[in-house]
Amino acid sequence: MPEAVETMDGWYCLHDLRTIDWTSWKLASSDERQAAIFEFQQLLEKWEQTEKDKKGSHALYTVVGQKADFILMILRPTLEELNQIETEFNKSKLAEFTRPAYSYVSVVELSKYMPSKDGEDPEQKPEIQARLKPTLPKWQYICFYPMDKRRQDDDNWYMLPFEDRGKLMYEHSKTGRKYAGRIRQIITGSMGLDDWEWAVTLFAHDSLDIKKLVYEMRFDEVSARYGDFGTFYVGSILPREQLPSFLQI
Amino acid sequence: MPEAVETMDGWYCLHDLRTIDWTSWKLASSDERQAAIFEFQQLLEKWEQTEKDKKGSHALYTVVGQKADFILMILRPTLEELNQIETEFNKSKLAEFTRPAYSYVSVVELSKYMPSKDGEDPEQKPEIQARLKPTLPKWQYICFYPMDKRRQDDDNWYMLPFEDRGKLMYEHSKTGRKYAGRIRQIITGSMGLDDWEWAVTLFAHDSLDIKKLVYEMRFDEVSARYGDFGTFYVGSILPREQLPSFLQI
Amino acid sequence: MPEAVETMDGWYCLHDLRTIDWTSWKLASSDERQAAIFEFQQLLEKWEQTEKDKKGSHALYTVVGQKADFILMILRPTLEELNQIETEFNKSKLAEFTRPAYSYVSVVELSKYMPSKDGEDPEQKPEIQARLKPTLPKWQYICFYPMDKRRQDDDNWYMLPFEDRGKLMYEHSKTGRKYAGRIRQIITGSMGLDDWEWAVTLFAHDSLDIKKLVYEMRFDEVSARYGDFGTFYVGSILPREQLPSFLQI
Amino acid sequence: MPEAVETMDGWYCLHDLRTIDWTSWKLASSDERQAAIFEFQQLLEKWEQTEKDKKGSHALYTVVGQKADFILMILRPTLEELNQIETEFNKSKLAEFTRPAYSYVSVVELSKYMPSKDGEDPEQKPEIQARLKPTLPKWQYICFYPMDKRRQDDDNWYMLPFEDRGKLMYEHSKTGRKYAGRIRQIITGSMGLDDWEWAVTLFAHDSLDIKKLVYEMRFDEVSARYGDFGTFYVGSILPREQLPSFLQI
Amino acid sequence: MPEAVETMDGWYCLHDLRTIDWTSWKLASSDERQAAIFEFQQLLEKWEQTEKDKKGSHALYTVVGQKADFILMILRPTLEELNQIETEFNKSKLAEFTRPAYSYVSVVELSKYMPSKDGEDPEQKPEIQARLKPTLPKWQYICFYPMDKRRQDDDNWYMLPFEDRGKLMYEHSKTGRKYAGRIRQIITGSMGLDDWEWAVTLFAHDSLDIKKLVYEMRFDEVSARYGDFGTFYVGSILPREQLPSFLQI
Repeated sequence: MPEAVETMDGWYCLHDLRTIDWTSWKLASSDERQAAIFEFQQLLEKWEQTEKDKKGSHALYTVVGQKADFILMILRPTLEELNQIETEFNKSKLAEFTRPAYSYVSVVELSKYMPSKDGEDPEQKPEIQARLKPTLPKWQYICFYPMDKRRQDDDNWYMLPFEDRGKLMYEHSKTGRKYAGRIRQIITGSMGLDDWEWAVTLFAHDSLDIKKLVYEMRFDEVSARYGDFGTFYVGSILPREQLPSFLQI
Repeated sequence: MPEAVETMDGWYCLHDLRTIDWTSWKLASSDERQAAIFEFQQLLEKWEQTEKDKKGSHALYTVVGQKADFILMILRPTLEELNQIETEFNKSKLAEFTRPAYSYVSVVELSKYMPSKDGEDPEQKPEIQARLKPTLPKWQYICFYPMDKRRQDDDNWYMLPFEDRGKLMYEHSKTGRKYAGRIRQIITGSMGLDDWEWAVTLFAHDSLDIKKLVYEMRFDEVSARYGDFGTFYVGSILPREQLPSFLQI
Repeated sequence: MPEAVETMDGWYCLHDLRTIDWTSWKLASSDERQAAIFEFQQLLEKWEQTEKDKKGSHALYTVVGQKADFILMILRPTLEELNQIETEFNKSKLAEFTRPAYSYVSVVELSKYMPSKDGEDPEQKPEIQARLKPTLPKWQYICFYPMDKRRQDDDNWYMLPFEDRGKLMYEHSKTGRKYAGRIRQIITGSMGLDDWEWAVTLFAHDSLDIKKLVYEMRFDEVSARYGDFGTFYVGSILPREQLPSFLQI
Repeated sequence: MPEAVETMDGWYCLHDLRTIDWTSWKLASSDERQAAIFEFQQLLEKWEQTEKDKKGSHALYTVVGQKADFILMILRPTLEELNQIETEFNKSKLAEFTRPAYSYVSVVELSKYMPSKDGEDPEQKPEIQARLKPTLPKWQYICFYPMDKRRQDDDNWYMLPFEDRGKLMYEHSKTGRKYAGRIRQIITGSMGLDDWEWAVTLFAHDSLDIKKLVYEMRFDEVSARYGDFGTFYVGSILPREQLPSFLQI
Repeated sequence: MPEAVETMDGWYCLHDLRTIDWTSWKLASSDERQAAIFEFQQLLEKWEQTEKDKKGSHALYTVVGQKADFILMILRPTLEELNQIETEFNKSKLAEFTRPAYSYVSVVELSKYMPSKDGEDPEQKPEIQARLKPTLPKWQYICFYPMDKRRQDDDNWYMLPFEDRGKLMYEHSKTGRKYAGRIRQIITGSMGLDDWEWAVTLFAHDSLDIKKLVYEMRFDEVSARYGDFGTFYVGSILPREQLPSFLQI
């Protein structure tokens, strides 16, 4: 029986995507709209303080196309905090003008395919802790999608020996490394937490790099034979200060 | 033809997941909201009495993400009781502010893959009866998902000989046993009752154990080759006393 | 080319599942609700007369879980009668408080895999006619699900020789016969009529027998290799006299 | 590389299925309902004139079950005409009381698997032209479903040599010919026009013939190995004069 | 490991499909309708100026059938511009009378399977630049659909050697070239941007050419074995001047 890989797990993660009901938003009074925006900005300010205190992180991006109008990605140490934030948003004024579009629950994950070179427990290293509890970059573009490793006929990831999986993942990481500095990737694991096995969140300065990375990686054997992908969401950063103009009628 | 395994069956089980319509909840008067909460708490108190009387059990948890806002898991001796409880909730005030999100009908099940060591009928043993008619633990986290055993090409569970299935299930149980005391698992069978073959409900003190258990089990051959999984719901306990604050506007 | 099996076909069958909109039902005046219940009971009485006249049959059961609140199963000699009944219900007062949940169109079917022992045309025999135009039992539980015979790679039912299919069906029928007196099964064919190839409706005195029968049959090769199953609906009988209490607010 | 078969193409075809919102229909005033029925009957009269002028054809049938309440099948020389008819209906009074249920865009198609016996271009023959631009029969029953030819592993229709495909289609046509006079079949092609590759529309005097034909054909190798089927819709004819009684409240 | 093909990428592309809510459109006052049409025409005029300035392009077509009522295809140098246009439309008066039907985000793409004959970088050539930043033709018909290259068992595009893929694509292009002047095809890539890997948009003078091209290509090995197709949308051109008559009540 193939040996399971151990994981290191960091902050819990909620991707929360919402669609704006523009018609009811336009029907609201100007005062109501101002109040809704102000309240949401206060939430964002509170979360920014959490981020400064290194107790979590978040990102707010618009989404291109009809799948959603914006995505809120939240990192926190516990599931309860994610649930509270979600519920707090649901009770807010702005939420009355949005509809749920999609959500995803996961936890920042690093796998231990590579042996520790110095015999130390990698999970204790500061650079690993920084990756497990990351401050999300404020780069221009985001791409989010969930994925599975395939278990089908001869293409069954979970029946592969540990070494083969390690080798395939290593090859895959080389493709990723070509995009260092251009793409920042956050892998979150979601077995037992949501419907796919992992979520991938990419941040980029140039949206074309997102396409080129995903395209190139599809030829890696680990994706070509073992990758099953869910829905892709792509968007660009929505700074708190630009909320009023984004929501301006 | 492979021999079917016998099952021992206990209480019937309804997983009932609901989404709160926060906008209409906010539109309700404070009195209406109080009345809705009070009525639902009375239902919960009635069910608590049933639990004390060992005539059933239930659990109430919030759900993280947009799939639902809370999950009610109900165990009762008959399908009719589940139906009555469901209908009673549907007729309640609180139900007016919720939408159905998902439900699942099943019955607590233990399989007889292992021969009885002492020749006795295991179903008569008190420890088995306790597992078939369990009082659900009030642990911090819940995870619920339905699943099938795969019947596809060479990976057809139902064409495997009895012994092979027994051996694969035994290996699988060893993974589960590593989490003894940390995860409590309730298996409910649903052939003929709902769309998947089984439902799995996990209770945990630490949400990370849920992820680690599901992850590790995926490498068991019985999951890797024969497991097909439905939607995963995860949440944390919602004690009756905290209902008002959860629903506070 | 494998030879098609001949079928004997009886009454047409409509499974009509509805969800009650409890919120709007509660908003209705007491008079409106009384009128709606009374009108529906009159429909049921009319159908009971049809059943007495041996010109059709019907069954009314609640459904456990959120998939639907009740199921109406109707047998009639022609498709037009089913359509008229459906439209008559749609025009009724009660229908205003329900939403369609699922429906299924089929015709009672018996297959001629077994040769007639006495050389007579089986379709002419009274016991066969009684099975083709059955009066539905008023047993406590119902289970309804549609199904296909698989056509996939090496598991292609329609490419099997007639004799092999006959043998597999015969083995299957032996499992069914173990439940004689405990389960009554109505097979309806739906090729060209609805989205699956058959519907199965089970009636039982004990709901556990439904689970046990479906479970045991899954190990029959005809199910294990060739059975693809749709959604399962399960419920308990709703006698006309109990309608007011079921719908009581 | 297998050689593509040539097709002969006739009139464009729109299958337009609608569900009646009976509750809002009942809320309408009697005058409104009369006006809606009258306007729709005028549309039908206009289309009947088109049919008499041999510039198109149409059929109106009810649909049994919850999938839809009626199906309108329209044949016209151009896509624009279909679009105009669809939009004209959408703007009509009756449309306010219906919801879209399903639609399908295709074009009447005959394939040239059989060589022309006399060396003539078959497309020029009057009997072929009559089949490409048919007047739809006013038979009692309709059955409509879309379908694909499978492209999966060893069952890949588009990788078969031309002769093999021709032979399989010829065998298939023999099954169809058994039902001559009892079933009239219209094949419409929809590659590039809609989500499946073809639509099949059957007209029958006896609804059981629909089931028997589809059942028997499923054993033809071309269906057993290469047929993938979509949703089936079945119903009975709704003559213009019976519209008022069908819609009578 | 198969070598990934390089792509040349041009303008970003949004396919935005909308369904008109004819009932609420009819309920609007004549003034409101005029204002909505006028405002949308102004948007179109602005986009026409962008097209004249070679800073983007767009197309507006009706859609036949119930999937949508019109499709707006927009090309712009950046994702942000697509997002702004989408949001601008969402905030417009006409949007209040439409519902989102489907959308697709991609970027105009040409692949470098063929070696450059003269050693020059093809991306710098004016004719390539013109194809990467095209002015969309104003032909009578449009056909739009997303697609994947299959990764399944022995039919795994991404495991094929570069040369084999190049050869298959070359064969495929020969089928396309037969339709030169009759069909204009725009390929847009969408890995990392949307749920399929590519979108295909065809423009034609004769709608039958769309069907014939898609049909003939299905027999190309690259489609037969490796093509997985999404939903097809087909429609005819909607010139700005004809908007009032299209929307006339």
